[in-house]
Amino acid sequence: MATTERSYDIADIGLAEAGQQRIDWAERQMPVLAQIRERFERERPLDGITLGCCLHVTTETASLTRTLLAGGADVALCASNPLSTQDEVAAALVDRHGAQVFAVLHTDRADELADVIGGTEETTTGVIRLRALEAEGKLGYPIIAVNDANTKHFFDNRYGTGQSTLDGVIRATNFLIAGSAVVVIGYGWCGKGVAMRAKGHGAHVIVCEVDPLRALEAVMDGFQVMKAVDAARVGDIFISVTGNRDAISGEMFEVMKSGAIVCNSGHFDVEVNKEELDAITEETFTARPFVEGHRTKDGREIFLLAEGRLINLAAAEGHPAAVMDMSFANQALAAEHVALNHESLENKVYDVPLEIDNEIARLKLASRGVEIDELTDRQRDYLASWNQGT
Amino acid sequence: MATTERSYDIADIGLAEAGQQRIDWAERQMPVLAQIRERFERERPLDGITLGCCLHVTTETASLTRTLLAGGADVALCASNPLSTQDEVAAALVDRHGAQVFAVLHTDRADELADVIGGTEETTTGVIRLRALEAEGKLGYPIIAVNDANTKHFFDNRYGTGQSTLDGVIRATNFLIAGSAVVVIGYGWCGKGVAMRAKGHGAHVIVCEVDPLRALEAVMDGFQVMKAVDAARVGDIFISVTGNRDAISGEMFEVMKSGAIVCNSGHFDVEVNKEELDAITEETFTARPFVEGHRTKDGREIFLLAEGRLINLAAAEGHPAAVMDMSFANQALAAEHVALNHESLENKVYDVPLEIDNEIARLKLASRGVEIDELTDRQRDYLASWNQGT
Amino acid sequence: MATTERSYDIADIGLAEAGQQRIDWAERQMPVLAQIRERFERERPLDGITLGCCLHVTTETASLTRTLLAGGADVALCASNPLSTQDEVAAALVDRHGAQVFAVLHTDRADELADVIGGTEETTTGVIRLRALEAEGKLGYPIIAVNDANTKHFFDNRYGTGQSTLDGVIRATNFLIAGSAVVVIGYGWCGKGVAMRAKGHGAHVIVCEVDPLRALEAVMDGFQVMKAVDAARVGDIFISVTGNRDAISGEMFEVMKSGAIVCNSGHFDVEVNKEELDAITEETFTARPFVEGHRTKDGREIFLLAEGRLINLAAAEGHPAAVMDMSFANQALAAEHVALNHESLENKVYDVPLEIDNEIARLKLASRGVEIDELTDRQRDYLASWNQGT
Amino acid sequence: MATTERSYDIADIGLAEAGQQRIDWAERQMPVLAQIRERFERERPLDGITLGCCLHVTTETASLTRTLLAGGADVALCASNPLSTQDEVAAALVDRHGAQVFAVLHTDRADELADVIGGTEETTTGVIRLRALEAEGKLGYPIIAVNDANTKHFFDNRYGTGQSTLDGVIRATNFLIAGSAVVVIGYGWCGKGVAMRAKGHGAHVIVCEVDPLRALEAVMDGFQVMKAVDAARVGDIFISVTGNRDAISGEMFEVMKSGAIVCNSGHFDVEVNKEELDAITEETFTARPFVEGHRTKDGREIFLLAEGRLINLAAAEGHPAAVMDMSFANQALAAEHVALNHESLENKVYDVPLEIDNEIARLKLASRGVEIDELTDRQRDYLASWNQGT
Repeated sequence: MATTERSYDIADIGLAEAGQQRIDWAERQMPVLAQIRERFERERPLDGITLGCCLHVTTETASLTRTLLAGGADVALCASNPLSTQDEVAAALVDRHGAQVFAVLHTDRADELADVIGGTEETTTGVIRLRALEAEGKLGYPIIAVNDANTKHFFDNRYGTGQSTLDGVIRATNFLIAGSAVVVIGYGWCGKGVAMRAKGHGAHVIVCEVDPLRALEAVMDGFQVMKAVDAARVGDIFISVTGNRDAISGEMFEVMKSGAIVCNSGHFDVEVNKEELDAITEETFTARPFVEGHRTKDGREIFLLAEGRLINLAAAEGHPAAVMDMSFANQALAAEHVALNHESLENKVYDVPLEIDNEIARLKLASRGVEIDELTDRQRDYLASWNQGT
Repeated sequence: MATTERSYDIADIGLAEAGQQRIDWAERQMPVLAQIRERFERERPLDGITLGCCLHVTTETASLTRTLLAGGADVALCASNPLSTQDEVAAALVDRHGAQVFAVLHTDRADELADVIGGTEETTTGVIRLRALEAEGKLGYPIIAVNDANTKHFFDNRYGTGQSTLDGVIRATNFLIAGSAVVVIGYGWCGKGVAMRAKGHGAHVIVCEVDPLRALEAVMDGFQVMKAVDAARVGDIFISVTGNRDAISGEMFEVMKSGAIVCNSGHFDVEVNKEELDAITEETFTARPFVEGHRTKDGREIFLLAEGRLINLAAAEGHPAAVMDMSFANQALAAEHVALNHESLENKVYDVPLEIDNEIARLKLASRGVEIDELTDRQRDYLASWNQGT
Repeated sequence: MATTERSYDIADIGLAEAGQQRIDWAERQMPVLAQIRERFERERPLDGITLGCCLHVTTETASLTRTLLAGGADVALCASNPLSTQDEVAAALVDRHGAQVFAVLHTDRADELADVIGGTEETTTGVIRLRALEAEGKLGYPIIAVNDANTKHFFDNRYGTGQSTLDGVIRATNFLIAGSAVVVIGYGWCGKGVAMRAKGHGAHVIVCEVDPLRALEAVMDGFQVMKAVDAARVGDIFISVTGNRDAISGEMFEVMKSGAIVCNSGHFDVEVNKEELDAITEETFTARPFVEGHRTKDGREIFLLAEGRLINLAAAEGHPAAVMDMSFANQALAAEHVALNHESLENKVYDVPLEIDNEIARLKLASRGVEIDELTDRQRDYLASWNQGT
Repeated sequence: MATTERSYDIADIGLAEAGQQRIDWAERQMPVLAQIRERFERERPLDGITLGCCLHVTTETASLTRTLLAGGADVALCASNPLSTQDEVAAALVDRHGAQVFAVLHTDRADELADVIGGTEETTTGVIRLRALEAEGKLGYPIIAVNDANTKHFFDNRYGTGQSTLDGVIRATNFLIAGSAVVVIGYGWCGKGVAMRAKGHGAHVIVCEVDPLRALEAVMDGFQVMKAVDAARVGDIFISVTGNRDAISGEMFEVMKSGAIVCNSGHFDVEVNKEELDAITEETFTARPFVEGHRTKDGREIFLLAEGRLINLAAAEGHPAAVMDMSFANQALAAEHVALNHESLENKVYDVPLEIDNEIARLKLASRGVEIDELTDRQRDYLASWNQGT
């Protein structure tokens, strides 16, 4: 595909300057992708490849796009969600960097994506559905599931969700976390991140969890663990991070203290059962932006944040760019991996190869000036002798 | 003073509804003041007293004002700073609660403050100046220095400044604190609060301090301690909380890494020596709101937040209402103390009596449902026998 | 096997009383095994089974032995290591509980272990070797590898090694950890446990790690990460937990500060390269029990603890009984699993089934009075719909 | 006093070699005293002074004694308690360092202490009694109260008691602290230290406190706070650090869980009301050294450690030498201060001058290689202008 015309479908190309400022700030926090981009500029591993990317058009995805372009790819970018598209960023990508940006690629422009050699998928949901397709023998090309890379979920779940969730709660409420009782429902990686940061703010943290192994881990980490309905009686702030529905539900609302604050940082807004909150509500009122007061029929006040949507996206800025840096580095290297190996890949869902995970960790350490050791030959031999059981 | 007319000098009385919403939210986080207000309504300890209060007119000071009104006082409120006045709050105070609000009381209306029986003072600066007046024999009435009450500085400095400073930095930059090197300059109570919260966010925290006792305390608390110029080489974020000028200065700017973020959470903007930053700057640019990029002559980028002003006020909302609750409870009880004891008080600067401090702590514990023990008679006797050295 | 004679081969049967006291104390910390034992007494799942157990004869293994006996098994216990055998415990097992205890079973008494239906293996080393046998098709019966159970390695590595390592260092040296620089070499689960506890003691913790993913995780957890030789210059205490040789070696000894303390908590004494320490040593002396001073040729003093052997076993008591409780619960339930399923098991090395892991976590939570929720049907359905990708 | 005979009254002069080894180890952890000793050797500030010291004769006090000797003093050392005297250390002091050691100085040898020019006192109790003497006008010479120096109580209370208390509990019980509920009774500096370390071991920490300000501080630090009798129902380990009697008493014993562990780290054994424990006890038994089991009439088991005496002294080694280093540096510099200033000192109890406290902090930082900044002239001027209120 060679064309001197720019292909785009964006709101206002004049927004490019402001968009570039935002992109610049994000890129300063994304040194891993920057290092990959530098190498891509030299090595051009994606030459001749057309990449169709369906994602939120934000400052951080702009950085990914530029990296793919630097690798030689033609990039056809479509906004996964018109509402989340930052128009000025889209404008900058087209005007300054030569990307093509379309509103909804996979319906109008599906013909442009023929001859696909592979794909990458970042979301948990997407991977589950692609694995279902694979099981039915319907997967049309190999997929690299970026979601499970260590360098992605370490950052996204523990450190990204941890910081941004507390950030969202504080921005929405200006509540003093120190000395308060924070109930974290779910102790997966996201829940661990949120519990760790709530503790780091000086809260008394209570964990609720249905999985006995995780519940035990929470106990051993020094948290109080109890049934959700018992936690409901003592909590000041409730944060659900379960990936399931009804994590905060009617029997909890029944017994919460007046003034309780409820939010979700795990998944769709089904984590909080709003119908059951509405059922006991006399009237609602806006207490602050993102804070909806529910005056209950028995005279208490319960505050629901961001209508139960993800609090870190709604009331704060979602994951910091440094977190996205790691996710998108996985995307970029996974794309390179497909480009270089597509002939030997089958139509399966693959994990990110460990070498890519390690390479990203190494680049991140390098960007922070952290040096680490390498095994000596003697140490390698010693480990090998163990692993061989000889 | 009895009048059926409302005295006010505010921008728009129609703002009262919105102001009331904001006041309501703040009051939910201010249960100590609420408990005092309930008692004041019954006991009316301030009947016949006119109180002149010079403070920022915000949702939290509104709560104090209402409490003083409930105690029977006539309250003449003046905005200490027109820029910080929340007009809708001022409107609500006048329209709903019968306060008088003036723009700048102590110049235009000084005559209304004749026959003063006492005062309270909250700021460190104010107390220093009043003590100077006392030393010269020029203090016109007794003053209660609220600043040193335990229930004030615990909350303000450690927990208030701690949380709101990190909040301000994150809002301004969306920077991932985990894994970064945060340099805290100053290890007084504010510095302890900031260091504790930065550690709670997963940072590697480095402390700089000129006082050897505090420096040693920081070492014993597990922090790295070094000279500021050495910390400058390795830090990602620099936060000054010294109460002094030049806490972050030229020799530090000379050696900072490109990308370094600099801010102040201690005191006036003199903590960061901006002249010395400007002296090495080639050009400045706005990277994000509150983030001013300085491109140095040697090609680095240093980011100054909020022009060196207090980051928690500039980029976040300052102390949470729960913190103000404690400060203003001290104000209210100090006012009551003056009203009840002014005849026996001399024209001196007094500390807040320990009983007030204890009472506020008790009210705060009660508001959280925390019960504590009391000494038994045998325990009291035992302690007494020790204290008497018998 | 039915006999009214007691089979034993122990030092002094009269030691039984003292042994019983020690067993009793350990059992109080082992409520999970106690709950299993109660069920075993009712259900007798091991009736007719002879179990040959090769292990350290200690108070904790005594508790395992009693559980197996309660399940109906004949237990032939042999001491894996005569030096680690607690004679009074062996005496109690024979005298009070009907076990047979032999000094070295697998040589003298191999004939008694014919017709083996399965086995369990706890050590990492053992599992590696058994997997090697499996690969060669030489495994004679199915094996359950207890080592990888979550309820084992959570407790053993993070919480057991973490506490007992610091305990060992403090007992050996009476060193004040707060304010000191502790270098943890290796950031696997053991290293995480040791780093967490050193931080919990107020140390400034530095991590060295060859794996970039783990090194990055340490950075994100707020630790300083650097090459071992750089850490060597600044550390006060060095703890190796790598599972490899030469984790602390000559180039580090060359640059350590005088007074540095060196120990191993990971593996055999090869983690510390003692030859390279000896090579620069002028003379050695005993500074305290378990503390060997090395006066180097350049006049420094380096202190090696417990001759480089595992410090938590040498200078402290190894893992607390509460940790062993979890490991041995896995052993007991794995034995039951083999007894009930041996006909369908192949001659392979199996992981501990997840149900066993979950059951142990549930028993542990129950012993602590911790109640947790169960998924509702609606939640189960919701998760299922996700997992199916529909 | 000049004599070629050695004056001593010790068990066995032949023990000197072993004593010297122990002294050497302690001295390695006492660099501050070592730096003072070096200066004393050059400056001889105590020349011509006879110092009578009544203290526990241990390795650490030996280091103090040597420092005083180096300063030129004649030192007459008497053991404050024959039971705590380490005979081999006493032997070494006499044989190697020229001290005079007596069993009980102040009765038999009171005449040798005539013409006293001043004293220092380290214990809280002692200071209380001396202040009582001062109030009655009966103080015979000036006293420096070392107890309140920052460099003493920081180290002793927070870091010393914190570490050594957990150390004592773990040695006595080998209990796994992670995941357990530790109840800390008293939240003074010692209680803060113990709570901090218990949290650092992974415990869920509950604080009981009669002082509302301290109770509130514990809440704000993230701990659960409750009445002692409520904490009694849920705790696994109880540690009293109140400095008062009956901190753990009958109403608590009534409701404790079977298996509860009780100890004292604050003060005399009156903190635990043993009579009230005995009153509900059916029989007692030794569970482990330092662990006395009480089988209650209602069938529970409660374990009292070290008969209620200070657990860190009874079951561990008390404060690490690094802690004593700071206390004794205060002693040495206070002695110098008296020697140099006795003519201007009155017969009062004085605090340690701030310069001494600062000097010790500086020496400690120097011994750790920590460098800190000094105020610039401009900063000094700026602070001065503030402090003067101009």
